[in-house]
Amino acid sequence: MKIKVINPNTTLEMTKSIDDAAKNIARTDTEIFSVSPTMGPESIESYYDDYMSIPGILDEIKKGDQEGFEAYVIACYADPGVHAARELTSAPVLGIAEASLYLASILAARFSIITTPYRMKTVTEDLIQHYGMNHRVQKIKALPIAVIDFEKNPSCANLLKEEAIKSVQEDDAEAILLGCAGMAQFAEDLQNDLGVPVIDGVVAAVKIAESIVDMHQATSKLKTYDFPEIKSQSGLLESFSINKK
Amino acid sequence: MKIKVINPNTTLEMTKSIDDAAKNIARTDTEIFSVSPTMGPESIESYYDDYMSIPGILDEIKKGDQEGFEAYVIACYADPGVHAARELTSAPVLGIAEASLYLASILAARFSIITTPYRMKTVTEDLIQHYGMNHRVQKIKALPIAVIDFEKNPSCANLLKEEAIKSVQEDDAEAILLGCAGMAQFAEDLQNDLGVPVIDGVVAAVKIAESIVDMHQATSKLKTYDFPEIKSQSGLLESFSINKK
Amino acid sequence: MKIKVINPNTTLEMTKSIDDAAKNIARTDTEIFSVSPTMGPESIESYYDDYMSIPGILDEIKKGDQEGFEAYVIACYADPGVHAARELTSAPVLGIAEASLYLASILAARFSIITTPYRMKTVTEDLIQHYGMNHRVQKIKALPIAVIDFEKNPSCANLLKEEAIKSVQEDDAEAILLGCAGMAQFAEDLQNDLGVPVIDGVVAAVKIAESIVDMHQATSKLKTYDFPEIKSQSGLLESFSINKK
Amino acid sequence: MKIKVINPNTTLEMTKSIDDAAKNIARTDTEIFSVSPTMGPESIESYYDDYMSIPGILDEIKKGDQEGFEAYVIACYADPGVHAARELTSAPVLGIAEASLYLASILAARFSIITTPYRMKTVTEDLIQHYGMNHRVQKIKALPIAVIDFEKNPSCANLLKEEAIKSVQEDDAEAILLGCAGMAQFAEDLQNDLGVPVIDGVVAAVKIAESIVDMHQATSKLKTYDFPEIKSQSGLLESFSINKK
Amino acid sequence: MKIKVINPNTTLEMTKSIDDAAKNIARTDTEIFSVSPTMGPESIESYYDDYMSIPGILDEIKKGDQEGFEAYVIACYADPGVHAARELTSAPVLGIAEASLYLASILAARFSIITTPYRMKTVTEDLIQHYGMNHRVQKIKALPIAVIDFEKNPSCANLLKEEAIKSVQEDDAEAILLGCAGMAQFAEDLQNDLGVPVIDGVVAAVKIAESIVDMHQATSKLKTYDFPEIKSQSGLLESFSINKK
Amino acid sequence: MKIKVINPNTTLEMTKSIDDAAKNIARTDTEIFSVSPTMGPESIESYYDDYMSIPGILDEIKKGDQEGFEAYVIACYADPGVHAARELTSAPVLGIAEASLYLASILAARFSIITTPYRMKTVTEDLIQHYGMNHRVQKIKALPIAVIDFEKNPSCANLLKEEAIKSVQEDDAEAILLGCAGMAQFAEDLQNDLGVPVIDGVVAAVKIAESIVDMHQATSKLKTYDFPEIKSQSGLLESFSINKK
Repeated sequence: MKIKVINPNTTLEMTKSIDDAAKNIARTDTEIFSVSPTMGPESIESYYDDYMSIPGILDEIKKGDQEGFEAYVIACYADPGVHAARELTSAPVLGIAEASLYLASILAARFSIITTPYRMKTVTEDLIQHYGMNHRVQKIKALPIAVIDFEKNPSCANLLKEEAIKSVQEDDAEAILLGCAGMAQFAEDLQNDLGVPVIDGVVAAVKIAESIVDMHQATSKLKTYDFPEIKSQSGLLESFSINKK
Repeated sequence: MKIKVINPNTTLEMTKSIDDAAKNIARTDTEIFSVSPTMGPESIESYYDDYMSIPGILDEIKKGDQEGFEAYVIACYADPGVHAARELTSAPVLGIAEASLYLASILAARFSIITTPYRMKTVTEDLIQHYGMNHRVQKIKALPIAVIDFEKNPSCANLLKEEAIKSVQEDDAEAILLGCAGMAQFAEDLQNDLGVPVIDGVVAAVKIAESIVDMHQATSKLKTYDFPEIKSQSGLLESFSINKK
Repeated sequence: MKIKVINPNTTLEMTKSIDDAAKNIARTDTEIFSVSPTMGPESIESYYDDYMSIPGILDEIKKGDQEGFEAYVIACYADPGVHAARELTSAPVLGIAEASLYLASILAARFSIITTPYRMKTVTEDLIQHYGMNHRVQKIKALPIAVIDFEKNPSCANLLKEEAIKSVQEDDAEAILLGCAGMAQFAEDLQNDLGVPVIDGVVAAVKIAESIVDMHQATSKLKTYDFPEIKSQSGLLESFSINKK
Repeated sequence: MKIKVINPNTTLEMTKSIDDAAKNIARTDTEIFSVSPTMGPESIESYYDDYMSIPGILDEIKKGDQEGFEAYVIACYADPGVHAARELTSAPVLGIAEASLYLASILAARFSIITTPYRMKTVTEDLIQHYGMNHRVQKIKALPIAVIDFEKNPSCANLLKEEAIKSVQEDDAEAILLGCAGMAQFAEDLQNDLGVPVIDGVVAAVKIAESIVDMHQATSKLKTYDFPEIKSQSGLLESFSINKK
Repeated sequence: MKIKVINPNTTLEMTKSIDDAAKNIARTDTEIFSVSPTMGPESIESYYDDYMSIPGILDEIKKGDQEGFEAYVIACYADPGVHAARELTSAPVLGIAEASLYLASILAARFSIITTPYRMKTVTEDLIQHYGMNHRVQKIKALPIAVIDFEKNPSCANLLKEEAIKSVQEDDAEAILLGCAGMAQFAEDLQNDLGVPVIDGVVAAVKIAESIVDMHQATSKLKTYDFPEIKSQSGLLESFSINKK
Repeated sequence: MKIKVINPNTTLEMTKSIDDAAKNIARTDTEIFSVSPTMGPESIESYYDDYMSIPGILDEIKKGDQEGFEAYVIACYADPGVHAARELTSAPVLGIAEASLYLASILAARFSIITTPYRMKTVTEDLIQHYGMNHRVQKIKALPIAVIDFEKNPSCANLLKEEAIKSVQEDDAEAILLGCAGMAQFAEDLQNDLGVPVIDGVVAAVKIAESIVDMHQATSKLKTYDFPEIKSQSGLLESFSINKK
């Protein structure tokens, strides 16, 4: 099966490391294509970045349906645009936060989430509430690190590890969720060090995507996730007009 | 004071009727400027439309700060992009859903919301939950009407009135919230007919905006609503790059 | 317009400083009349004081309607008697806790509340829950200070400031809400010192009251806030009998 | 032991029927003294009545401690003044709503509450939320009956029975809670007719009061329910001043 | 009346100390019979123990109905099997966690729970959520002590006392709930030391059981707690078959 | 990989149809072994049955680890014993309710659950609350059908279909969750008829189990899901003693 993994930011090193994580976990009969949109932010570290990444994501979804993709993963822990993406396609659309929360809940009774930078703490809190998962989360912590530093600065791994150890030793976290797609590369080492499940959302989402495709299930097109109405978009976004339902 | 009212869709008849509602309620010393963005959807009737309207909204916020606006109203009941808008400016940013929920809670113990079309019911439910207002809402109802029909089709007023009467008589609603900016024009007649408060979010938001400006209060720039980081946006959205903080 | 600000306690120094705060923020065309009831507690520091202040508040509401007031502010952070006051009059009735929570939610994603003395912490917690605002509140803190000391003891300002600084630096509060009407006088200095919004409920309530009067909106008289039934009150409270609806 | 049952309204027929219900269920070694306060409303059918009943209730609590009572029951389903009453005395104070909710939760997985008149539906909803019991309640229903009619109008029993039957047959209620102390007299017949537990709050509260006295437990005087501060009350309420702690 | 107190574990020293606590508080006309089931775990310190204790509990309920018991107390703070027990009998069935939460809520506005060992913290958290009591609980703390050590190791009392003191002094707990039936023996001393209510669930449950029996109330047999269907159980559990309804 | 699917009841026709559903969806490299425990109820239709099925389930988990299974599915919609099973093994343990709720949340914004018989409605409601999924569920409905009738009585399919159609047409369900493992056989036809996703929990659980095994993830053994303590079980359950950790 063909799964499109959309890194909503345009930093290709990050797309590459997300692609590595996805391919590493995908089944041999799964083809992973990881892309950055042709438009949007270098990284997602604010509501502004979050929303500005959505047109690019939706563009990739639209193209993806023509390219024959059977599932989509939106590889940013803010799950940007996931509800709109589900309108655009019948194929399942996975947000990595949602996927990681569900898998973590099966593996551990209580867990903590480490995100970056500070502002994404509020974004994540609201997301957890939206998914109804507050009761499982011990703490949400934010590192003082820019997202793209994970690709460039080896010391980031240490800061992440320190915070993860504190979560386990002081906050009673029984698993750690990596609250940023840029942390995917550290998951394995971290899990070895900590001895508890360390869940990377990209991995979680790819595996659930495979499952849903296997099930021949599709997004419900009744009511909420029905295709968007035929409608013009104007100006800079004219190419986002919907011409048929 | 100068308040910018942003109708996030590009249907100018609707911008005009929103402008009427805003000017009608604004104080004599308040200047209302109502705009549609230069890009985006004709109307907002899906998550797709909601997100696609945000770049245009944010563009208007950025321009607005240079134009000397002291407050912003985002005139769509999905409150699209409101958190990002609060990052971009120190001036207060009002969503019409949030504003109407707060004012209604002061005037009535329980109320219902009428939105349109069906899919926006889910959007509104999630928004109510996000604002913590579930306990005040009797029902959220959706009309089978396209948003722009409110500008064109006089019979829409009847459908809205019928549903409002049912809300009051059968669902114990003690006030009605108009869950779409396109309904603003019907608020006064409806209130006269029903004998309970009918709250239009545009009106509510303009008045709270005036209040906050009077208070010389500004959006907190600490942590969550700090200005977005300096960062490039690429492709179609290049003009949305942030060059200074 | 004429707004009556009711300081539910009988300490006139406090009524004076509440009056100053209200007049300072009111529009030039707003007349503020601040009163203490003719009966009730010197200050509100317990459920006992809270409830004992309500007859005096309701007395002021009843007189207020004859005096031509168009809106009422109940200036104690426990919002004593606010639901009963809304039954007694069609004019809007504002509690300062409710008003400050709503305005703060527009200006900051997360905030803390500082109240006094300890017992009011529980009162405030239950009030926050009643208004559905738990998810916005980082912490509720109580100072070891008697309410009337704010009028008499300059060192109280220092204790308040220390706690506010800790809220911002250690608890991630992005705004501070003053959980006692007696703190109104310190709001401006505190905001200058902290650099985040410091919200005084009296100010918030006066401004929302002006807004609602401008909107020609009134309390819904359908069901919950209908006028109280015609009914005798006996004994000491005989004068509180309701003779007409 | 001596238990004081306070009917917060001044309708003595109702005090009598509450006294009957309480005495009927009390142990032989329990002395029940049922009183109406010397001040306050004829019946409680609004927030106004609710709050106006509290001074009289608190007066009875104060006198009660001098009279040697070991527990108090506040016999109105709005639980008026219960938190203040707990401040005034070390003896346990029972609200009949709280007591009935707890006992019902032990006897039935889901139940409905029937109150009167309409406005008390909102009061009851907020009380259920305050006690954390929403998940157990199928429906809260209000009868179009004045409270004192239960003492005077035999047809009220029929209306109550009809609504209770509907609750069981249509709303899946597995028990019925009588949401007004005036309904106590109908509990036994109703339970015989319905075949499910019918819980009268007066009965529930008297039994839990006996239990707590047996346990030699007292209200915690640490923090929230500490005795009120020494403080003057002025005007009509001067006699409510607190002279010692 | 005859009340059966079921210690769900098979450690007879613990059954004895539970029996002492129950008899000590029971009325003179109440006969307490405390038993351990004929099967099941030595102590309950995990979900595994919790569920493995249930067949033995249900066996005692079945036998109890033949032996003429009028109420049952399940004396483990996980309230194991309480819903199934309510299906098996019309007599009231009390869980000690549920009973203690309700009585504590009447005596203190906020309280903490001390359980043992660590894993039971999660069990207790989920139970509190199930009963809707989160808003009353300051903290749930777990001691690093095996349950049966309470019977054997005098130093356990010290550890419990230390944690209870911290709860009161640092966590603002206004009462302490003993989250393990093995702690019953320390309740009185602890309360004397702390000066706040210390609630033992066995005591709370026995007293509420007496109350419900006095009220001639029974478990609702409509829907949820109806008797189990006639049905075979096979293998080791064959004796648990239900032969008549 | 080897996955053990445990039908917690002892009705082998049902184990067979569960096995069919599981094998039908499993990957070709997955070996499905479906079993009924050697002890326990014929079907699960009450809390009694639920708890009585757990020893048999846990027995199958213990044996499973020796047999080399890498994941477990507990195929009853009450998710009986799932937390204890997670203590017993490091392999992932899936409840079919939990699995179906998570997958459904990815495919549909709102869904309904159809269970059987009536009493399981309460069980399911409490389970949904436990998993934090209330906001996604439109309605939980119960059929008046015994669980094993699904294997024997062809007309059950019709009743299920009728209720599912009503859920979609009247209750705004955008997907249907089959709230009983015995309904698995009808999922495909129902989905064809309804045109919305029909989620069978067995299928959902098998696919997530495969995913977690692929990820080389295991249940967290820190704190909550640590192996049970070494401990004797007595009497009938002696064979459930834990001899090593």
